[in-house]
Amino acid sequence: MLYLVRMDVTPPRDMPEEEFSRIKAREKEYALGLQRDGRWRHIWRVVGQYSNYSIFDVSGNDELHQILQDLPLYPYMTIAVTPLAAHPSALPGQ
Amino acid sequence: MLYLVRMDVTPPRDMPEEEFSRIKAREKEYALGLQRDGRWRHIWRVVGQYSNYSIFDVSGNDELHQILQDLPLYPYMTIAVTPLAAHPSALPGQ
Amino acid sequence: MLYLVRMDVTPPRDMPEEEFSRIKAREKEYALGLQRDGRWRHIWRVVGQYSNYSIFDVSGNDELHQILQDLPLYPYMTIAVTPLAAHPSALPGQ
Amino acid sequence: MLYLVRMDVTPPRDMPEEEFSRIKAREKEYALGLQRDGRWRHIWRVVGQYSNYSIFDVSGNDELHQILQDLPLYPYMTIAVTPLAAHPSALPGQ
Amino acid sequence: MLYLVRMDVTPPRDMPEEEFSRIKAREKEYALGLQRDGRWRHIWRVVGQYSNYSIFDVSGNDELHQILQDLPLYPYMTIAVTPLAAHPSALPGQ
Amino acid sequence: MLYLVRMDVTPPRDMPEEEFSRIKAREKEYALGLQRDGRWRHIWRVVGQYSNYSIFDVSGNDELHQILQDLPLYPYMTIAVTPLAAHPSALPGQ
Amino acid sequence: MLYLVRMDVTPPRDMPEEEFSRIKAREKEYALGLQRDGRWRHIWRVVGQYSNYSIFDVSGNDELHQILQDLPLYPYMTIAVTPLAAHPSALPGQ
Amino acid sequence: MLYLVRMDVTPPRDMPEEEFSRIKAREKEYALGLQRDGRWRHIWRVVGQYSNYSIFDVSGNDELHQILQDLPLYPYMTIAVTPLAAHPSALPGQ
Amino acid sequence: MLYLVRMDVTPPRDMPEEEFSRIKAREKEYALGLQRDGRWRHIWRVVGQYSNYSIFDVSGNDELHQILQDLPLYPYMTIAVTPLAAHPSALPGQ
Amino acid sequence: MLYLVRMDVTPPRDMPEEEFSRIKAREKEYALGLQRDGRWRHIWRVVGQYSNYSIFDVSGNDELHQILQDLPLYPYMTIAVTPLAAHPSALPGQ
Repeated sequence: MLYLVRMDVTPPRDMPEEEFSRIKAREKEYALGLQRDGRWRHIWRVVGQYSNYSIFDVSGNDELHQILQDLPLYPYMTIAVTPLAAHPSALPGQ
Repeated sequence: MLYLVRMDVTPPRDMPEEEFSRIKAREKEYALGLQRDGRWRHIWRVVGQYSNYSIFDVSGNDELHQILQDLPLYPYMTIAVTPLAAHPSALPGQ
Repeated sequence: MLYLVRMDVTPPRDMPEEEFSRIKAREKEYALGLQRDGRWRHIWRVVGQYSNYSIFDVSGNDELHQILQDLPLYPYMTIAVTPLAAHPSALPGQ
Repeated sequence: MLYLVRMDVTPPRDMPEEEFSRIKAREKEYALGLQRDGRWRHIWRVVGQYSNYSIFDVSGNDELHQILQDLPLYPYMTIAVTPLAAHPSALPGQ
Repeated sequence: MLYLVRMDVTPPRDMPEEEFSRIKAREKEYALGLQRDGRWRHIWRVVGQYSNYSIFDVSGNDELHQILQDLPLYPYMTIAVTPLAAHPSALPGQ
Repeated sequence: MLYLVRMDVTPPRDMPEEEFSRIKAREKEYALGLQRDGRWRHIWRVVGQYSNYSIFDVSGNDELHQILQDLPLYPYMTIAVTPLAAHPSALPGQ
Repeated sequence: MLYLVRMDVTPPRDMPEEEFSRIKAREKEYALGLQRDGRWRHIWRVVGQYSNYSIFDVSGNDELHQILQDLPLYPYMTIAVTPLAAHPSALPGQ
Repeated sequence: MLYLVRMDVTPPRDMPEEEFSRIKAREKEYALGLQRDGRWRHIWRVVGQYSNYSIFDVSGNDELHQILQDLPLYPYMTIAVTPLAAHPSALPGQ
Repeated sequence: MLYLVRMDVTPPRDMPEEEFSRIKAREKEYALGLQRDGRWRHIWRVVGQYSNYSIFDVSGNDELHQILQDLPLYPYMTIAVTPLAAHPSALPGQ
Repeated sequence: MLYLVRMDVTPPRDMPEEEFSRIKAREKEYALGLQRDGRWRHIWRVVGQYSNYSIFDVSGNDELHQILQDLPLYPYMTIAVTPLAAHPSALPGQ
């Protein structure tokens, strides 16, 4: 089941940069793992913003919430979720 | 070069349904052609709305505008374009 | 899988009232059927508005879109979908 | 009398995590109590957000305000209340 | 139970003025009746707009919706409802 | 002359609770005084929010601004003012 | 008493241009009369828009509403009213 | 050349009150000087808000920006500028 | 004096296409003339929209309003104007 | 390929002014360099705001994101990007 997810990151001003870098490193590991197992299908940077649009392919709402809530950057993110359905004009097998 | 495009369709109330169906059929043909040649990489339906989110992979802004302006449903659409860049946490070859 | 759905109806000004009443009667039948089979779990009127909030319990995004798109009033509605997950403070079996 | 309530939580950045955990534990107790006595009929997590949609069934506006104001997380919440009425297409006894 | 209600009227462009005047006359009769029986406690014009703010004192959400839905101008109105509670700084018997 | 005023309070996070309580006590005294002399005609709590809707009956814009600016909670408030006029459907003497 | 008023005009598409010109001529006469008697103190065009910002100096809310409601273009306008007070940094006699 | 300017002031929470008072005193001097030389034609308080609407009469965009940027309160302001043109219904010499 | 202007065109649904084409031809002539004399410095299409962003270099607010109001497509446009000033980081002679 | 970029700067309240001045000096150097090599074609100040509108001419989305992300003021900016295409009414060679 597919979802479009937009994540906007607001780095905490008062956190030492080194600590934030460690969180970002864990975030990257976490994102790579989910991409490898096929659940985080795409991630793109929004030009000019500390934001991404991503496509998730998961079993449903509960799994998606669990994945998002476990993001190391979750406390510093605003997240918007759009559920997606198959489009009648999509190429079969696209 | 990648772009996220959202299209919201407002069918014209005063057009005979048969005529609108012909336009939709042409729209589908057009969309399938661009998917086959790789420029319209994804199209998903937004759940509960006469809308889609799409990913385009084109040479740049001018080609994208040309493609969108030639959509048979273009006069009945509101379109929002978000330019995308590579994300540092994306899996290589994703 | 649960979804909160808000539907706002804008009756078409130029449709004979009798015809619109027929559509509303079909809408009601359709809604009752989905409530009986358990997929449309709740429907409430928003006070002062030709709108409702509903809870759907379906297999996922695609089934929900199909159900919404088949609403007899669908062409006259604006629909917003919020995917829901289990809440950690919910009473078990709530 | 039914109300749809949306609560968005913004955790205070400067509070020790242990203290915030104690508040959340009290919040959960409080929510479970109101669910057991039937006034907090439903609580669902909004996917991807520190937010919930809830259904309250109370005697009226004053009781609802008292319940919300006594939430242990109330100082850290933004709350939106939508009064609900019976819907003519609802299944009797739904 | 008190509610603040805002009503914005959009007169239909294509209705003969005489017919709209008849609807407005029925609206006024309806409003006066509800003011006399104490349920429509206040009605004020918003300066410069075809809008009013009103205070209703009714038994609850369902009665309020019934009253609003029966407004002769209801099909031409946008309505917003805010449930009100007693304020701790209000003068007793205000 | 009547005005609808909405006040939203944002308590300062860094002020000792005792100090804020003293300000709220002064606010209440101030509000009661203005209600007694008839200029603050109504004050209602917005359900679920640290906000009120109030009706003021004053000589004009300048007096209203002076009253609002002197509110002990003024530095912690967002205020919106709507000027009101007599409504042609209001009951005489309402 | 001073008010800032913004008026946005949306000309009716289906009215013969000659008829709309007659309404605009009456509007101009009306505006000039109120400027001559000092109640419509200023009127400025918003650059690029069929809109104006105006300053009214009237006895209060009711008189302002009466003046605005009698504007010949009133049915084709969206109006926003901001009540103004004396500013402590204004030059005396400004 | 005329401009409508709206200024909203957000006093800094962490600045000693005495220091902010000094800035406000300089702001007032600055504003009076520009009113005396005719460039700051009007300044009005928005009722209930730490905001003003002002009319500036300057040689153009660059001069206006210089004036606004030099406001002692500039770092604590949100400013919105609307360029104004002569209105065809304005009284000559208004 | 420079201004950024955004124009969004909404073609009238009920106008014969041939008539609208004639208006667009006149618009193009008008735009080319103003570009040749240096007052309409730039015009760019917004990708995916019937909109443009333009830079005008004119003597001031009144000349800009006159130019915009005389656009053949003016009745079918929504226009937003942003006054621009020299930027301290701009290359001299840019 | 052209883009319209709007940058809004929010200076950090808690940074020593001298340090912020150093960042602004580096920002200016960076901006001048990109203007000299032709990629940052225009930069204009928005009147009354710590903001600019700029035109970039770069090879595409990825290069633009790199340039923006490397701005010394990037952590203190909100950035909005609008992709631009050639306009059919533009003067050739404009």
